[in-house]
Amino acid sequence: MTNRKSDKAESLKITRRDEDYSRWYLDIVDKAKLAEDSGVRGCMIIRPEGYAIWEKIQQILDKMFKKTGHINAYFPMFIPINYFSREAEHIAGFAKECAVVTHHRLKLNETGKISVDPGAELGEPLVVRPTSETIIWSTYKNWIQSYRDLPLLVNQWANMCRWELRTRPFLRTTEFLWQEGHTAHATYDEAEAEARQMLNIYKQFVEEYLAIPVFDGQKTENEKFPGADHTYTIETMTQDRRAIQVGTSHHLGTTFSKAFDVKYLSAEGTLEYPFATSWGVTTRLIGTMIMVHSDDQGFVCPPRIAPLQVIGVPIYRKEAEKEEVISKFHELQERFMKIDKFSFRIDERENLNPGFKFNDWELKGIPLRLEIGPRDLINGNSVLVRRDTGEKINVPLAQLEEQISNILDSIQENLFVKAKQFQNENTYYVSTYDEFKSLIDSKPGFYVTYFAGTPEDEEKIKEETKATSRCIPFSLQEGIGKCFLTGKETSKKVIFAKAY
Amino acid sequence: MTNRKSDKAESLKITRRDEDYSRWYLDIVDKAKLAEDSGVRGCMIIRPEGYAIWEKIQQILDKMFKKTGHINAYFPMFIPINYFSREAEHIAGFAKECAVVTHHRLKLNETGKISVDPGAELGEPLVVRPTSETIIWSTYKNWIQSYRDLPLLVNQWANMCRWELRTRPFLRTTEFLWQEGHTAHATYDEAEAEARQMLNIYKQFVEEYLAIPVFDGQKTENEKFPGADHTYTIETMTQDRRAIQVGTSHHLGTTFSKAFDVKYLSAEGTLEYPFATSWGVTTRLIGTMIMVHSDDQGFVCPPRIAPLQVIGVPIYRKEAEKEEVISKFHELQERFMKIDKFSFRIDERENLNPGFKFNDWELKGIPLRLEIGPRDLINGNSVLVRRDTGEKINVPLAQLEEQISNILDSIQENLFVKAKQFQNENTYYVSTYDEFKSLIDSKPGFYVTYFAGTPEDEEKIKEETKATSRCIPFSLQEGIGKCFLTGKETSKKVIFAKAY
Repeated sequence: MTNRKSDKAESLKITRRDEDYSRWYLDIVDKAKLAEDSGVRGCMIIRPEGYAIWEKIQQILDKMFKKTGHINAYFPMFIPINYFSREAEHIAGFAKECAVVTHHRLKLNETGKISVDPGAELGEPLVVRPTSETIIWSTYKNWIQSYRDLPLLVNQWANMCRWELRTRPFLRTTEFLWQEGHTAHATYDEAEAEARQMLNIYKQFVEEYLAIPVFDGQKTENEKFPGADHTYTIETMTQDRRAIQVGTSHHLGTTFSKAFDVKYLSAEGTLEYPFATSWGVTTRLIGTMIMVHSDDQGFVCPPRIAPLQVIGVPIYRKEAEKEEVISKFHELQERFMKIDKFSFRIDERENLNPGFKFNDWELKGIPLRLEIGPRDLINGNSVLVRRDTGEKINVPLAQLEEQISNILDSIQENLFVKAKQFQNENTYYVSTYDEFKSLIDSKPGFYVTYFAGTPEDEEKIKEETKATSRCIPFSLQEGIGKCFLTGKETSKKVIFAKAY
Repeated sequence: MTNRKSDKAESLKITRRDEDYSRWYLDIVDKAKLAEDSGVRGCMIIRPEGYAIWEKIQQILDKMFKKTGHINAYFPMFIPINYFSREAEHIAGFAKECAVVTHHRLKLNETGKISVDPGAELGEPLVVRPTSETIIWSTYKNWIQSYRDLPLLVNQWANMCRWELRTRPFLRTTEFLWQEGHTAHATYDEAEAEARQMLNIYKQFVEEYLAIPVFDGQKTENEKFPGADHTYTIETMTQDRRAIQVGTSHHLGTTFSKAFDVKYLSAEGTLEYPFATSWGVTTRLIGTMIMVHSDDQGFVCPPRIAPLQVIGVPIYRKEAEKEEVISKFHELQERFMKIDKFSFRIDERENLNPGFKFNDWELKGIPLRLEIGPRDLINGNSVLVRRDTGEKINVPLAQLEEQISNILDSIQENLFVKAKQFQNENTYYVSTYDEFKSLIDSKPGFYVTYFAGTPEDEEKIKEETKATSRCIPFSLQEGIGKCFLTGKETSKKVIFAKAY
């Protein structure tokens, strides 16, 4: 074991959470090299370290989707603006702030300046998809004729664009990556079962792989997806005790089949409108992981989603020691590759002291560090350092495979338990609006309360407190009480919180 | 075995190649459900059957890229128009026909009509990426400081947009999917080795998985990528004996590092411009597979890239037979899943006769069909039908696993050999331009000839014959001869052909 350098290199320093939470988040995104701002307003570059996480998310979710019968396809990114006119709520929700393609050519003038060619204006402008319900349902008109074509279970991995006013990497960007499922069903009940199934898949994935505990529930009328019959959501809590929407699943009823005139011939010979769902998660998942797990040393990545799980840092002073230690690491690497239970890399960078390397890998969120020095070789020993707790564990070299697997499991569990406990500790029950108003600023968190208000009531709450209804959580519905705002009796409990 | 229904259902009929080759191609794309036109000009919808092929292409290539040290990242789809002004050739090549985003909002007028909001014009228009050299090199300015940051080996999977005048699904569409590698190197030689390595990977992938034989070589000055020092290409021949460019790899020299002022500190302490490569293949690969392998029965998909390799069609007349036959298929399915060597599905659709199913799966290009009927059960027998040759092979049920694997290998090989032979048979050697002009229309194909002409000469040839230089093939360079056009002595042999 070596002594830790206490003064960090500038490139590894990040703002503390209690100093400036927003800055802390941006520092991690930047210095852990997950993403960076591009020269294009609101668009980020997802750097290799960040993109590797997205690739793992894709692989795991894609398997879960396929296991439940979904297939992938690809629809155009451009949507003619008249498609949006078909569904009034949907226009209001999406067509407002978006990227509009109006021309198809640039021209060079004599001074070498480049500009839009006015002669190449499109007859009908195109919108870069903010979501694909309209173009997909205009296609489903050809795909759905008979009850035999149902259910139709399609998913797409794609980039999207929403022209956001204020952007923040991963959490809210003009362009982002996501998957969007779009399904069609013969009956209301089947669509309902699908919408619930997909929410459950999201919850399972997010809790088991990202170690993020969520409340699953239904959105209120005011917060549902534009055009949906109703929307389901999973919500979690960041370390500054705000809510963050992690994924949503919508039962769209017959909104889009009617808007695009999609009908199927039922087994009974009648023409019917199919029922629809759509559901999606985005690169926001990565931002949420940062917000939930990371600390003042940097990014903390749950082992099951970490592209690199164990980093080996050789400790040595003299050349002779170096050779011995590194050759032991190579021997271990081969041993680890044989069992193929975790990913492992050796940090063989020259001219960097171990302390710098420790800080660097902690900043990058690698779950476990393996240190071996000359004395360890003599004793057949090694030191494992947990990223989540900083705990140092002496492990005989012969037991490394087993211990590493166990500790990675333990880190995964600990991250979930810690986040769950934090969420519980900051979830309050209130019965009056006055109580809520007096607490929400000084004690931010989730506020559970009986609520029977209207969308207008929700708008009022939002205006007065900046908090919004997050969901009607499945788990907390019991009993009957008085709406905290209107006093009306209701069985509906709602979570209110300030949200990202 | 059952008799084949000779008259096909309308939904399974396609135009013959000798009748109308273009129509034949479109019929396969449409009726094999690989893709369809969208309501958006020049943009296709990649249907699940087509997208599953793209997913396999991605998986295999991505592994090959990673094995050679490349990592994935994601860059914005929007590129400010001034980025294109930095590199003159690049503007000329790409910024002309492209999708231009000029506004960020739509508005609804009182009559419910939706239109572009003139108040939301962007200060600087954005181009939807036609290729990403400019935005990536503007980013590399931050990523590359020292020789230690090199080589930088990045790839991106993304959608692209080029505003094409005439479009054809998969082969030339306004939006398409692709991967683009963008690498930076300390020396010219390293960049050269990378460009050649990636061309080799493409050639290996295309020949071994897609069973498409290619000529690999260098593009002439006239046909190289705008901004490249030189471009490598792989080219194959369609069944109407035209050339099709399958993939390209560019040595970009210091064009983009200079345009975006990217310099690194060398080990010797001097500031140097790094050398660049870029390389890509697109969804065009799928169109090329159709063009090279398919026949008058429909799509022919090489087994190693086919998402579904073997389709089981149960043959029966009576209910009692049906149960027996289908239960045998289920038993086989379990057996096949255990060895997990090929993908298999059973066609259990009701109310469709076997003849319809045979035609349907042939149209869809499934490499091998397994038929089992009541008499086969008694004899412990089965029939395998090859998609490539139509050959029927009797195989004892006990030997199915082994035989299916062997036959799939044999189909893969046969498709390659057949295409290679066709390419050889239609590759001609000419020594004068007059000879070439007199042959190119009546005997289309690849014309190999000594060529020492200028870009202007190539333009003239193109104008007069509609043929273009496809490449300077690595394999055919030997000896010295007279340029077929100018009579100048040269050692350079070029392939000329009409191309897609």
